[in-house]
Amino acid sequence: MHKPSLIAAGVLLSANAWAAAPANEPIQPIQPAKIENPAKVELGKQLFFDPRLSKSGSISCNSCHNLSMGGSDNLPTSIGHNWQKGPINSPTVLNAGYNVKQFWDGRAADLKAQAGGPIANPVEMASSHQLAVDVLSSIPQYRESFKQIYKTDQITIDAVTDAIAEFEKTLVTPNSRFDRWLQGDEQALTQTEQAGYQLFKSAGCVACHNGPAVGGGMFMKMGLVQPYQTSNPAKGVAGVTGKDSDLNVFKVPTLRNVELTYPYFHDGAYWKLEEAVDVMARVQLGRQLQEQEIGQIAAFLRTLTGEQPSFKLPTLPPSSAQTAKPQPFN
Amino acid sequence: MHKPSLIAAGVLLSANAWAAAPANEPIQPIQPAKIENPAKVELGKQLFFDPRLSKSGSISCNSCHNLSMGGSDNLPTSIGHNWQKGPINSPTVLNAGYNVKQFWDGRAADLKAQAGGPIANPVEMASSHQLAVDVLSSIPQYRESFKQIYKTDQITIDAVTDAIAEFEKTLVTPNSRFDRWLQGDEQALTQTEQAGYQLFKSAGCVACHNGPAVGGGMFMKMGLVQPYQTSNPAKGVAGVTGKDSDLNVFKVPTLRNVELTYPYFHDGAYWKLEEAVDVMARVQLGRQLQEQEIGQIAAFLRTLTGEQPSFKLPTLPPSSAQTAKPQPFN
Ligand code: HEC
Ligand code: HEC
Ligand code: HEC
Ligand code: HEC
Ligand SMILES: [Ca+2]
Ligand SMILES: [Ca+2]
Ligand SMILES: [Ca+2]
Ligand SMILES: [Mg+2]
Repeated sequence: MHKPSLIAAGVLLSANAWAAAPANEPIQPIQPAKIENPAKVELGKQLFFDPRLSKSGSISCNSCHNLSMGGSDNLPTSIGHNWQKGPINSPTVLNAGYNVKQFWDGRAADLKAQAGGPIANPVEMASSHQLAVDVLSSIPQYRESFKQIYKTDQITIDAVTDAIAEFEKTLVTPNSRFDRWLQGDEQALTQTEQAGYQLFKSAGCVACHNGPAVGGGMFMKMGLVQPYQTSNPAKGVAGVTGKDSDLNVFKVPTLRNVELTYPYFHDGAYWKLEEAVDVMARVQLGRQLQEQEIGQIAAFLRTLTGEQPSFKLPTLPPSSAQTAKPQPFN
Repeated sequence: MHKPSLIAAGVLLSANAWAAAPANEPIQPIQPAKIENPAKVELGKQLFFDPRLSKSGSISCNSCHNLSMGGSDNLPTSIGHNWQKGPINSPTVLNAGYNVKQFWDGRAADLKAQAGGPIANPVEMASSHQLAVDVLSSIPQYRESFKQIYKTDQITIDAVTDAIAEFEKTLVTPNSRFDRWLQGDEQALTQTEQAGYQLFKSAGCVACHNGPAVGGGMFMKMGLVQPYQTSNPAKGVAGVTGKDSDLNVFKVPTLRNVELTYPYFHDGAYWKLEEAVDVMARVQLGRQLQEQEIGQIAAFLRTLTGEQPSFKLPTLPPSSAQTAKPQPFN
C-alpha cells in the first residue's frame, strides 16, 4: 500500500509543480468567499443596492461602486448628491476586504467603519445615519430581516454597516488567469504575460503591490522618487495625521481587476493602463521603461481580472406609508 | 380506455373550474416571457444597465427604471443629466410590452421606437445616437455581440434599440397572487381582496384598466368627470396632436405591480395607493368611495404584484483606449 501512494504523491507534485509556487511568490491567489451567514449577506446586498440610503432616493453604493463595471464608476471623480463633483477617484470595492485599512488615506479601519461614511457624506449620499435608519425602519421587510439576523426590533446604523460589510466581504474575484497560473496551469499565461510578471517583480513594483490583492497592504508616497503632477488637492494620509511626512501618502491600491478600474490614481487622471504603468515606473522607481516592457507589464496586469460578482439582481422591499419621502430637489 | 380518460378530464375541469374563468374576466393572466433569441436579450440587458449610453457615463436606463424597485425610480419626477428635474413621472418598464403605445402621451409606437428617446434627451441621458453608437463601437466585446446577433460590423442605433426592446419584452411579471386566483387557486386571494376585485369591476375601474396588464391599452382623459388638480404642466396627448380634445389625455397605466410604482399619476403627486384609488374614483367616475371600499380595492391591487425580474446582474464589457470619455461635468 505504501509504494503506490508515494508514487501517486510524486506524480501529483510534478504535475502540480506550480501549485507549490505561491509560497515563494509575492502574490497569492484570491480565495473564493466563504459565506457563513447567507441571510446577512443577502441583506447587505439589498442595502448596497438601495438608493433610499441617500437623501435623493437615487444614489446607492452601487452608483459609485458599480458591480457591473468592476466595482467603481469609471469616472475621474464621482457624481454625488445634487450632481456634486467628488474630491477623489472611487476605488473598487472588489477585494476591498483585503485592504489593511479603507479609503485612500486609510481613515476607516475596516469595511464596517467605512460604510457609515458615504451615507452621511454631503457630497455623496447626503443622508444622515438617523434618516437612513428611520427609512429602513419604516419598511416592514427590512424590519423583519434585521430582526431575524440581529435579534432586535431596533434597526441601528451599526447593524446596517455590519450587513453591508458582510456583503462586501463576498466581493472577491478568484480564478483570474494569473491565479490559475499560480496554481499550476502553465497554459494560463502567454509568454508576454509571464515576461510582464517577471518584470513586475524585478523592476520593483512588487515591493508595494503584493499579497493576494496585489496591493491594499500598505501606504506609500505617490511620487516617491519624482514628484507626481496633479491638480487634485488631496493630501493623502497627511489630511488625517497633519504630518508633513504623510503628504501625498496614499494606500497602495489593489491591482486585481485593474483592467476595469480606469481611470487610474487617486485623481483619476490616466485612462490607459499603459500610461499608468509608465507613470508608476517613473515616479515610484525613477525608471523609464521601454514601450515593450510597458506592454508586457500591462499584459500581465490584465491577467489579474478575476471572476466578477455573480448573483441575482436583488429585489428591494417597497416603502410604506411611514417611509420618509426622498428629497431629490431640496 | 375511453371511460377513465373522460373521467380524468372531468376531474381536471372541475379542479380547474377557475382556469376557465379568465375568458369571462376583463383581466387575463400575464404570460411568462418566451425568449426566442437569448443572445439578443442578454445584449439588451447589458445595454439597459450600461451608463455609458449617457453623456455623463453615470445614468443608465436602470437609473430611472430600477429593476430592483418595480421598474421605476419611486420619485415624483426623475433626476436626469446634471441633476435636472424631469417633467413627468417615470412609468414602470415591467410589462411595458403590453402597452398599446409607449410614453404617457403615446408618442412612441413601440418599445424599440421608445428606446432611442432617453439616450438623446438632454434632460435624461443627454447623449446623442451618434455618440452612443460610437461609444459602443469602441468596445470590442460589444462589437462582437452585435456582429454575432445582427451579422454586421456596423453598430447602428436601430440595432441598439432593437436589443433593448427585446430585453424589455422579457420584463413581464407572471404568477401574481391575482393570476393564481384567475387560474383556479381560490385560496390565493382573501375575502377582502376578492371583494376589492368585484368592486374594481362594478365601480367601473375595469372600463379603463383591463387586459393582461390591467391598463396600457388605451388613452383617457385624466379628470373625466371632475378636473384633476395638478401643478404639472404636461398636456398629455394634446402635446402631440395639438388638439384641445386631447388635453390631459394620458395613457391608462398598467396596474400590475402598482404596489411598487409609487408615487402615482403622471405628476407623481400621490404616494399612497389608497389616495390614488380615492382620486381615481372621484375624478374618473364621479364617485366618493367609502374608506372600507378603498381599502378593499387597494388590497386587490396589491395582489397584482407578480414575480419580479430574476436574472444575474450583467457584467459590462470594459471600455477601450478608443472609447470617448464620459463628460459628467461639462
Ligand atoms: C457618490 C459616490 C460614492 C458613493 C455613493 C459611495 N461611495 Fe464608496 N467611495 C467613493 C469614493 C470617492 C471613495 C474614496 C474616498 C476616499 O478614499 O477618500 C470611496 C471609498 C470606498 C471604500 C474604500 C475602498 C478602498 O480601497 O479604500 C469602500 C469599501 C466603499 N467606498 C464602499 C461604499 C459603500 C458600502 C457605499 C454605500 C453605503 C459607498 N461606498 C457609497 C465614492 C462613493
Ligand atoms: C513605492 C510604492 C510603489 C511602487 C514601487 C509601485 N507602486 Fe503602483 N501604486 C502605488 C501607490 C501609492 C499608488 C496609488 C497612487 C495614487 O493613486 O496617487 C499606486 C497605483 C498604481 C496603479 C493605479 C491603480 C489604480 O487603480 O488607480 C497602477 C496600475 C500601478 N500602481 C502599477 C504599478 C506598477 C506597474 C509598478 C512598477 C512599475 C508600480 N505600480 C510600482 C505604490 C507603488
Ligand atoms: C432620467 C430618467 C430616465 C432615463 C435615464 C430613462 N427613462 Fe425611460 N422614462 C422616463 C420617464 C420620465 C418616462 C415617461 C416620459 C413620458 O411619458 O413622456 C419614461 C418612459 C419610458 C418608457 C415608456 C413606458 C410607458 O408606460 O409608457 C419606456 C419603455 C422606457 N422609458 C424605457 C427606457 C429605456 C429603455 C431607457 C434607456 C435607454 C430609459 N427608459 C431611460 C425616465 C427615464
Ligand atoms: C376613464 C378611465 C379610467 C377609469 C374609469 C379609472 N382609471 Fe385609473 N387611471 C386612468 C388614467 C388615464 C390614469 C393615469 C392618469 C395620470 O397619471 O394622469 C390612471 C391611473 C391610475 C392609478 C395610478 C397608477 C400609476 O402607476 O400611477 C391607479 C392606482 C388607478 N388608476 C386606479 C384606478 C381605480 C381603482 C379606478 C376605479 C376606482 C380607476 N383607476 C378608474 C384611467 C382611468
Ligand atoms: Ca480608478
Ligand atoms: Ca405606471
Ligand atoms: Ca409612479
Ligand atoms: Mg444612478
